[in-house]
Amino acid sequence: MRQYVLKIDCKDEKGLIYRIADVVFKYQLNIVKNDEFVDAERGRFFMRAVLSGEADMGAFQGTLGAMLPSDAAIYCSQERKKNIVIMGTKESHCLGDILLKHDSNDLNANILAIVSNYDDLRPLAQKFDIPYHYVSHAGLERETHEARVLEVLGDYTIDFLVLAKYMRILSPSFVSHYAKKTINIHHSFLPAFIGANPYKQAHERGVKIIGATAHFVTNDLDEGPIIAQDVIHVSHEMGWKEMQRAGRNVEKVVLSNALDLALEDRIFVHENKTIIF
Amino acid sequence: MRQYVLKIDCKDEKGLIYRIADVVFKYQLNIVKNDEFVDAERGRFFMRAVLSGEADMGAFQGTLGAMLPSDAAIYCSQERKKNIVIMGTKESHCLGDILLKHDSNDLNANILAIVSNYDDLRPLAQKFDIPYHYVSHAGLERETHEARVLEVLGDYTIDFLVLAKYMRILSPSFVSHYAKKTINIHHSFLPAFIGANPYKQAHERGVKIIGATAHFVTNDLDEGPIIAQDVIHVSHEMGWKEMQRAGRNVEKVVLSNALDLALEDRIFVHENKTIIF
Amino acid sequence: MRQYVLKIDCKDEKGLIYRIADVVFKYQLNIVKNDEFVDAERGRFFMRAVLSGEADMGAFQGTLGAMLPSDAAIYCSQERKKNIVIMGTKESHCLGDILLKHDSNDLNANILAIVSNYDDLRPLAQKFDIPYHYVSHAGLERETHEARVLEVLGDYTIDFLVLAKYMRILSPSFVSHYAKKTINIHHSFLPAFIGANPYKQAHERGVKIIGATAHFVTNDLDEGPIIAQDVIHVSHEMGWKEMQRAGRNVEKVVLSNALDLALEDRIFVHENKTIIF
Amino acid sequence: MRQYVLKIDCKDEKGLIYRIADVVFKYQLNIVKNDEFVDAERGRFFMRAVLSGEADMGAFQGTLGAMLPSDAAIYCSQERKKNIVIMGTKESHCLGDILLKHDSNDLNANILAIVSNYDDLRPLAQKFDIPYHYVSHAGLERETHEARVLEVLGDYTIDFLVLAKYMRILSPSFVSHYAKKTINIHHSFLPAFIGANPYKQAHERGVKIIGATAHFVTNDLDEGPIIAQDVIHVSHEMGWKEMQRAGRNVEKVVLSNALDLALEDRIFVHENKTIIF
Repeated sequence: MRQYVLKIDCKDEKGLIYRIADVVFKYQLNIVKNDEFVDAERGRFFMRAVLSGEADMGAFQGTLGAMLPSDAAIYCSQERKKNIVIMGTKESHCLGDILLKHDSNDLNANILAIVSNYDDLRPLAQKFDIPYHYVSHAGLERETHEARVLEVLGDYTIDFLVLAKYMRILSPSFVSHYAKKTINIHHSFLPAFIGANPYKQAHERGVKIIGATAHFVTNDLDEGPIIAQDVIHVSHEMGWKEMQRAGRNVEKVVLSNALDLALEDRIFVHENKTIIF
Repeated sequence: MRQYVLKIDCKDEKGLIYRIADVVFKYQLNIVKNDEFVDAERGRFFMRAVLSGEADMGAFQGTLGAMLPSDAAIYCSQERKKNIVIMGTKESHCLGDILLKHDSNDLNANILAIVSNYDDLRPLAQKFDIPYHYVSHAGLERETHEARVLEVLGDYTIDFLVLAKYMRILSPSFVSHYAKKTINIHHSFLPAFIGANPYKQAHERGVKIIGATAHFVTNDLDEGPIIAQDVIHVSHEMGWKEMQRAGRNVEKVVLSNALDLALEDRIFVHENKTIIF
Repeated sequence: MRQYVLKIDCKDEKGLIYRIADVVFKYQLNIVKNDEFVDAERGRFFMRAVLSGEADMGAFQGTLGAMLPSDAAIYCSQERKKNIVIMGTKESHCLGDILLKHDSNDLNANILAIVSNYDDLRPLAQKFDIPYHYVSHAGLERETHEARVLEVLGDYTIDFLVLAKYMRILSPSFVSHYAKKTINIHHSFLPAFIGANPYKQAHERGVKIIGATAHFVTNDLDEGPIIAQDVIHVSHEMGWKEMQRAGRNVEKVVLSNALDLALEDRIFVHENKTIIF
Repeated sequence: MRQYVLKIDCKDEKGLIYRIADVVFKYQLNIVKNDEFVDAERGRFFMRAVLSGEADMGAFQGTLGAMLPSDAAIYCSQERKKNIVIMGTKESHCLGDILLKHDSNDLNANILAIVSNYDDLRPLAQKFDIPYHYVSHAGLERETHEARVLEVLGDYTIDFLVLAKYMRILSPSFVSHYAKKTINIHHSFLPAFIGANPYKQAHERGVKIIGATAHFVTNDLDEGPIIAQDVIHVSHEMGWKEMQRAGRNVEKVVLSNALDLALEDRIFVHENKTIIF
């Protein structure tokens, strides 16, 4: 029996679940798991179901579409390994964590390539036999550099682009190529400490907790929809470098958790927020 | 428009959601919120929905029952304030926390009475004008004492019996009177440190984290279905009394959270576990 | 045997611990507990010791002062219950939590009075027999209102002024009267969501964690030295009112923990930061 | 200027800090950092200091020893990279995490070798160029297998032996060779779920939190002094394999944190507990 993930996101209306369950039943599909949420404030309906069975899924989606409000976004895909490309700069902890999980079959994705604006991470990529593309930004205007990166990325069919401590700001034009597909890890508990060197900012402010935030990348720097966050306690004894070091464990775990959610098609993005089942 | 909570717990079968949604639709009820879970291992289906509308709910339940497997437990109730009785012994932090929330209309329940085997909590009960029943166990056999407590409780119609640091073990006979309705707070992270003085045990073991567990009471001491748990970090600097003092904040918050879940009809109990939406 | 808390805060120099231990030894005092920290970046030494013994503590402090750098701040006090005044507005959860702890002898302080710009909290104050001063701000300029509050406070000798959800901004003039003595609870994980209605801001931003921050009040709104912070996880299911409700448990626990630290003389404030032993 | 870590562990007496500070001062050493703790219940004094300066440290330790109680354990070592050997079985997440940190110079240790009772981890070891010793236990009695492992370990001078999910129970004889030097990660929140397959036990018990514990290995299985613990929240939706998968992130972070504490000489072991500065 095949398994499918069905995601529906539409204007809320009476009887939606009945209509959907009716179509599912008619196509002899079984609902293995089902989550719904209505954002009452915005009048929006979100549903994610795992279906099993053998049906003409094209026809199923057609029938379903005809029953739903005209603004409905329907996603229906057989469960499969997604394809990701990872972008990094110099720091290896997030990249390494993903590579290790991939290596032990603990990541439900194929890593197609690693792209970096430095060559520092190449030895790590080589250990795990992942193609490494060094696209230096030295001496280049942002748009020229991004054009070269896009050219490299263009060779791959990418489900998710993972920014594993990629330390360059992306232009709206770049972002638009992988909209709702680009996941970034920010080394602070957003919206605190937006911008450069959050650990230094955190240390100067004297906070007692630091954190990390995984979010989709949008045109507003550090303002994209948040997927996952976590924190650790810190004390006056820690300088900003100790905070940075301690924070790495949070960064890699938060990015890894966010990536898992994306790979399992558990995330809806609506306006600047995520709904996660 | 009235709001109802519908809870269904039955053997898993194909088409359950369709059948339920069909009945809901026919009675012109709207699904405001819906959660489902299938315990694949045990082959069991759980669903909780918030419905709004005006319908003959008796007829609705009848129709629904006819469509569901014969073992289905159907609970359907208009949203309302539940009635609780709180039992305590000497410690006031959990009781006080519930009284405060009640006093500021932050608890979705009526507190009918407080019952204790000591008289120490009476002044606190009086501050908040809650009837206080002192049922001493001094010189009594367990069953005689429990009979007296049951007599007191018998005057009230109780949705949930809350053991807010009630420090006596309850007999199976007592427990059977309020089965799946009695919520206890245990001052450890169960199943660690079952039994007497968990903080002393925790201190002796040298743990770095302590916690609290809210659970339904069953005949197996400290073995009932867990509703909520939380923890805090501790260090070598803390003696067991400091741990106990620090632990009180966790105990009261965990009990309060568990009680909220119960009051909102969010908990299913199946065998020795809870399913919580 | 009496117990004393000794706190020293001065420019860092070689041999400080030796000099201090030498004086302690000469006065036949025993060091029960000792913590030190050197802020290398700022070249500053912090030490807190608990001493026991019978000595002329005035002479002890004089001798100690003569051995230390001229900028040394020396605090030496017999362990004693501190005197606090609590200020609130309408919300009762933080105030109630402190009153409950006080009532069960779990707070190492005397609560001298409660001051509020509304009369809503009076019934709660009365339950616990604490003098309540209602100082309405209605129709008054800020400085006139503050003058009236200061007049009320002037009748008390206050170790710490606790803002338990006091919802008015204090002027620099007011703050200066209780500098390093005024503890506020802010209902967000500072520095995120400074200003009004942080839960609404948090909900709009779609964060996955919310928190609370206890800090000393300075002239810079929400910028004072942080004492304690904690967080809880939230989800897309929660509107801002649910976040606010859930946040109350964090607020009261964080304020309570910060107050305990203050009451035990465990906090140093240096520039905009705290050092906490 | 050289830096030294000084650790003293002895019977508590009046004037200890004075005597120690006196010797430190006489040898013209500077105290960069200093922590003390007195376990009042057991009458035991613990101190850890970081000293800087140029002195005859042998003479220093001699003078110090003469001033301290006769049962004093004095450890004084120049700050240096420790040498570790890692033992594993089949699971790679903890081992991989340590290798990655080592590879990016984020681990203050030399990894001398990896020893395993299976050959599965060899490819990972090879990626990072660490000697790999496969010592199969197949068909061997425990003591024969352990003798072979000890023979391999005998070739190395080991500061800490790290059991990174080594799934065999060690005999008292083996343990005695690396007493207070062997760090294990247990995949539960000890003392809950001692023994085999803790995630399965946790799932069956229906806990809402799972955790991991790093501890020194002693002859009592899973009863050694605890170094670090952490937890994550789980729900009814997770089967034991999902818990196991989620738990891996906790296991690796807890082991990594415990190892850092050991490498920085921050841990005292006294009886069955740790004191950690």
